[in-house]
Amino acid sequence: MPLKGLKGSLSLSHDSKTIKFAYVSFSMLSCLTFLICDLIVIVTYLMYLPAMGGFNISSATTLIFHSMGLLAYLGFFHLASKWQHIITKWLKMENKFLRHPYTSKDSLSLRRKVIMTSAVIAVLSLAEHSLFQGCMIYGFIDRRNVCGKETEEEPIAVFLKERFPYMFHAIPHIVFLWINQYVSFIGTVVWNFLDLFIIIIAIGIKTRFKQLYDYMKKTIILEEENIHYFQLLRSDYTDACELLSFVDRHVSILIFLSCVNNLYFVCNQLLNVFNPLRYSIDRIYFWYSTVYLLGRTFYLFYTAAEINEISKAPAKLLNSIYNKKCANEVERFLMQVNTEHPALSAMGFFNFTRQLILTMAGAIVTFELVMIQLNDISELSPLCGV
Amino acid sequence: MPLKGLKGSLSLSHDSKTIKFAYVSFSMLSCLTFLICDLIVIVTYLMYLPAMGGFNISSATTLIFHSMGLLAYLGFFHLASKWQHIITKWLKMENKFLRHPYTSKDSLSLRRKVIMTSAVIAVLSLAEHSLFQGCMIYGFIDRRNVCGKETEEEPIAVFLKERFPYMFHAIPHIVFLWINQYVSFIGTVVWNFLDLFIIIIAIGIKTRFKQLYDYMKKTIILEEENIHYFQLLRSDYTDACELLSFVDRHVSILIFLSCVNNLYFVCNQLLNVFNPLRYSIDRIYFWYSTVYLLGRTFYLFYTAAEINEISKAPAKLLNSIYNKKCANEVERFLMQVNTEHPALSAMGFFNFTRQLILTMAGAIVTFELVMIQLNDISELSPLCGV
Amino acid sequence: MPLKGLKGSLSLSHDSKTIKFAYVSFSMLSCLTFLICDLIVIVTYLMYLPAMGGFNISSATTLIFHSMGLLAYLGFFHLASKWQHIITKWLKMENKFLRHPYTSKDSLSLRRKVIMTSAVIAVLSLAEHSLFQGCMIYGFIDRRNVCGKETEEEPIAVFLKERFPYMFHAIPHIVFLWINQYVSFIGTVVWNFLDLFIIIIAIGIKTRFKQLYDYMKKTIILEEENIHYFQLLRSDYTDACELLSFVDRHVSILIFLSCVNNLYFVCNQLLNVFNPLRYSIDRIYFWYSTVYLLGRTFYLFYTAAEINEISKAPAKLLNSIYNKKCANEVERFLMQVNTEHPALSAMGFFNFTRQLILTMAGAIVTFELVMIQLNDISELSPLCGV
Amino acid sequence: MPLKGLKGSLSLSHDSKTIKFAYVSFSMLSCLTFLICDLIVIVTYLMYLPAMGGFNISSATTLIFHSMGLLAYLGFFHLASKWQHIITKWLKMENKFLRHPYTSKDSLSLRRKVIMTSAVIAVLSLAEHSLFQGCMIYGFIDRRNVCGKETEEEPIAVFLKERFPYMFHAIPHIVFLWINQYVSFIGTVVWNFLDLFIIIIAIGIKTRFKQLYDYMKKTIILEEENIHYFQLLRSDYTDACELLSFVDRHVSILIFLSCVNNLYFVCNQLLNVFNPLRYSIDRIYFWYSTVYLLGRTFYLFYTAAEINEISKAPAKLLNSIYNKKCANEVERFLMQVNTEHPALSAMGFFNFTRQLILTMAGAIVTFELVMIQLNDISELSPLCGV
Repeated sequence: MPLKGLKGSLSLSHDSKTIKFAYVSFSMLSCLTFLICDLIVIVTYLMYLPAMGGFNISSATTLIFHSMGLLAYLGFFHLASKWQHIITKWLKMENKFLRHPYTSKDSLSLRRKVIMTSAVIAVLSLAEHSLFQGCMIYGFIDRRNVCGKETEEEPIAVFLKERFPYMFHAIPHIVFLWINQYVSFIGTVVWNFLDLFIIIIAIGIKTRFKQLYDYMKKTIILEEENIHYFQLLRSDYTDACELLSFVDRHVSILIFLSCVNNLYFVCNQLLNVFNPLRYSIDRIYFWYSTVYLLGRTFYLFYTAAEINEISKAPAKLLNSIYNKKCANEVERFLMQVNTEHPALSAMGFFNFTRQLILTMAGAIVTFELVMIQLNDISELSPLCGV
Repeated sequence: MPLKGLKGSLSLSHDSKTIKFAYVSFSMLSCLTFLICDLIVIVTYLMYLPAMGGFNISSATTLIFHSMGLLAYLGFFHLASKWQHIITKWLKMENKFLRHPYTSKDSLSLRRKVIMTSAVIAVLSLAEHSLFQGCMIYGFIDRRNVCGKETEEEPIAVFLKERFPYMFHAIPHIVFLWINQYVSFIGTVVWNFLDLFIIIIAIGIKTRFKQLYDYMKKTIILEEENIHYFQLLRSDYTDACELLSFVDRHVSILIFLSCVNNLYFVCNQLLNVFNPLRYSIDRIYFWYSTVYLLGRTFYLFYTAAEINEISKAPAKLLNSIYNKKCANEVERFLMQVNTEHPALSAMGFFNFTRQLILTMAGAIVTFELVMIQLNDISELSPLCGV
Repeated sequence: MPLKGLKGSLSLSHDSKTIKFAYVSFSMLSCLTFLICDLIVIVTYLMYLPAMGGFNISSATTLIFHSMGLLAYLGFFHLASKWQHIITKWLKMENKFLRHPYTSKDSLSLRRKVIMTSAVIAVLSLAEHSLFQGCMIYGFIDRRNVCGKETEEEPIAVFLKERFPYMFHAIPHIVFLWINQYVSFIGTVVWNFLDLFIIIIAIGIKTRFKQLYDYMKKTIILEEENIHYFQLLRSDYTDACELLSFVDRHVSILIFLSCVNNLYFVCNQLLNVFNPLRYSIDRIYFWYSTVYLLGRTFYLFYTAAEINEISKAPAKLLNSIYNKKCANEVERFLMQVNTEHPALSAMGFFNFTRQLILTMAGAIVTFELVMIQLNDISELSPLCGV
Repeated sequence: MPLKGLKGSLSLSHDSKTIKFAYVSFSMLSCLTFLICDLIVIVTYLMYLPAMGGFNISSATTLIFHSMGLLAYLGFFHLASKWQHIITKWLKMENKFLRHPYTSKDSLSLRRKVIMTSAVIAVLSLAEHSLFQGCMIYGFIDRRNVCGKETEEEPIAVFLKERFPYMFHAIPHIVFLWINQYVSFIGTVVWNFLDLFIIIIAIGIKTRFKQLYDYMKKTIILEEENIHYFQLLRSDYTDACELLSFVDRHVSILIFLSCVNNLYFVCNQLLNVFNPLRYSIDRIYFWYSTVYLLGRTFYLFYTAAEINEISKAPAKLLNSIYNKKCANEVERFLMQVNTEHPALSAMGFFNFTRQLILTMAGAIVTFELVMIQLNDISELSPLCGV
């Protein structure tokens, strides 16, 4: 199903009437499978929690990863069920930006940009997950070699049992262990896709405001006596805002989930900076994943904030009009630009602006500094268990 | 008396001329009883404080609970004495929203909404108090069974003495102990009612802005050449703002009390998350009350913020008017919507907006992180005393 | 000299041409005496600092008290030298508010308000200083009685030596010790006067905006067709803003000093809440001075914020004008009210608004929580020295 | 190369067509030398890091100093390559401010101001670096005298080896040690020049807004019936804003680097306040450099914020126009002033305003308070090593 959404957003500039939400389909089956599996993992983990010494940062992280995966999946599920309606309306709304006087060249570059971004994030996240698996396998092999434990169980079972002890508490059979691997993998995919999805949407909407601004910049001196010109511009600006607010209404909950998720994991990752790691591959994985996470989160916030930045730009152009003929129209447009502040938002709790990035960074640093004091730097746990 | 206020707010859409503040009445007697009892409890507690090892988080919590109860009660008392005046003016002000062109259908749904909200909060808070009493009784019985203390006093006296040792310091007779039970119960009711009262008022005012917006949305395209239409709309909008500001002036102090109260107890409750608890019923009570408190506080902030959200909505509709005939009127209306920012406020110290919720959440997290360091996780205290 | 300033502000509504800054006068002499004495105390203390174990919270407090006293005194000195110019211009600027159509009744109530406020603060601060001296003397007597130290020095010398050991380091003679007592007393007076001065100025300016608003409220419905009326109103509003900005330019540095001073001592006082105290009189003094300090600081911030609140009030009245005749004038006035945000400011670093109070409170709580961790609760130091 | 930029900015008011970025030149050679040397130092240090006990505050400081130096240098390099274009456009844009009606007197005072500021910062930073070298040499001599170590190496080699042990790890020869000295020196110069550069630019732009404001103040009463006058003023204001935004676009990244750099070193320096120091010269150096750093940072923020302050000033003058003839032009100008908020910005993440200074100070205090708890006050390390 996530891929279905992706296809939808990749085809931003195409006719998408053929998209339909099939209640009975293979995708639907795989969705339900994931939802049930994830729920099983969460419930099992919650049951196992007291035996592991209760609630702490590490168990909270596992729990939040799975819960967020579940919620994001449900969010996408809900969005997919309304996707046909959304994409149809979206296409209708941005129709005017695909025709004269707006150049269609931008559409092509938009398509290339979307594909590029998707590809880069896909490759980087794949590399991240591979590194993660590599670390696990390397650690497992090293542990077997060094500790020389003669295990009657086959390696893969030992490996999984060791990694996911809490699963064994509730479900004793090896076959079921694959559920956890499956859930982790899909969870990672969903998480990366969630950010990618928001980035793509932000790029899509930003392009419309950019087109408007570019067109204004090119023509405003020529047309400064044309009242109709300013009325049309304002109408297009209102439509772009309307598109933004329409899309925001539908994906706001996903944006909120993504932010909470990213901020939690950024804090968590930075908190582990001082923890010692046994192997070089662990260190490589840790720094790679930290940089990747920070980079992706920053790019998400930055791209979303671009909408706000570009939407304020027409004010400068309008301020440079001194002709008195269209003064009223220009003033009206100016007032709209100066008071509307269009921006992607996370359920209205905060709007994505450039200033937000600094505020977030400040909050993260404060949390980090305080939490470092709470979190004793753990020694390396013994290699071969007790 | 609180119930009197409730009746008043339930009848938001009725004629309420019959409401009168009776200085000599049964309600008045019960009010004074509570006020005196609460004062006795606070004074006794303050006297007992040094013997208990001075001021700490736990004693501060008890003190704040009782003081806030007292203050909130006084606030309601004061409000009740002016209630006839307030509700008469309120009804007069919102009169125009109950007639054509505003549909009266909303009034019915408002009444249903108010009753629903009240019922849900009443049931949830009753469940919370019952659970609390259950915990106390369970703990008391278990302690008697396990420690096998042979008490010559009857169980209820021991139970109360144990629960409220500070009362025995000043007032040695068992009969007086019921004061504390009574004060706790009324305090809990007042606290829940305080939040409920603010939520109901917020819903009431929000409905007026919502009606205005719905009416605008439906008719704005048809009437975009009618200057009189925009003048009437702006007049109604001004009246809605006036109503908000009038109500806010009178209940602002209660809102402030409610916020301080809720924020303190949210911080306090979250701080106890890591404390160990002896019985399952304690754990159930703790998590239930935490979730209930967070939920109610969030709902209060969210509902109050809705007024601000809906009051900004007309701007989008006005921005989509391109007709030049009413340009002046529309611009004037726009300017008012864009600069007035009507919102419920806590004595002007902060306004209830969506962004506020995030700010508050951030502040709570920061406080929490710092206070966790101050608050050593206490071991279970010994079951049978020293 | 401070008294001179006070006289000046008490006579806000009189002709004050007679005020003159006398470079050679008794006041000038007493000023210089204080400045030199305070400088001596600071330098002596700095020299003594290493011998006392270096820089810590307690020594920082003494140092800040004396430095702030010095700076505030210099500030007043500078202000006094320009006072004739300031008060002359002030009187000229507020001239129009003392005549028709503004009632002069407000002027009388202003005078009463200023005297009342001064009296209350004077009495409260006197009580505070007396209590402080009482504590010192009580502690000294008790120490002599309990420890039974036979001192050949006369009590007053022992008392002072004990209280101000660092003075003895540099200046061995008893007579010089009175310098410290003198500096402490004048420092306390200056500190209280600083706050009082700002409060009085804030009340003075607020009254002008209040007069304007009251007049508008009374007449706006009658005059809504009178263009000249709105022009006059706007002109008066501009003058009130000009007065505020003129005064703010001159006293801004004193406001900044006062805020830094108050915030530091509020933090410091709250930090000592958990420190144990030996005598009841100490506890009484501590709680009295804490409540007094918090109350005075809050009142200062609240009064200063009132200017901002009342200056925004005309917007509501202007929004209720629907008459089209003066639409342009009303819009122009509205724009000015909505964008000017007049407020007292601390050198432009922050403006005094209601919201500021909450921000400050939040910052104080955060600092407090963090500093409590730094500051180990000190045991009672031994009564009779080592 | 930095000097080249300086020359460029000193000649703000001259014709600078002769400036050219020479790809093959002596400056270019020295640039590359520095870049390569700095890179070597950073890489060597990173390799040496694990041997020194990993990442901590002290090593982070060294690393950040060198990395920031490198980045700032690259930033200047990039800016220099576009300098001819920038300075040409700048000169063209501010052309109108050098002619009638703007007096050219301001230009002269601007030139004097720039030279003064440069001289003061140059002298102070030279004093700082000399003191630093003095401390090093004094400590080295004292150590040799006290510990009486008979070293076969000549003193300078021992001195350098001791100061920069990590260099010896990778590069064993003494000659290469001078690289580090060279890099430190140039790094300090670049750092100081970075701040100076931003201050000069801020002064330059501020002067243009100041000229506009002074001219308005002088003439607005005379010309209040002249529509053309207001149109010209607004046009000039727009051009000043355009100049600001053009310059900001090009130096924003340097501003951001400077802020991060300054804030980090302010935090770091304040954190070391409680650390004990062995020699008086160390204490003098420490306090001098702390005060210098705080002063320079404050001056940078203050100067940059001045642009924002002065750009808002015309609003007050415009509000005092009551003549109806130019009402439309005045309102349009007012709207622009009230909504544009021109300010230098650090890549749009934050704008330089007076309020920012307080926000930054608050953040620094919070960070400081939290970090003091993390940072145990280190004892003096033994003089003669282990």
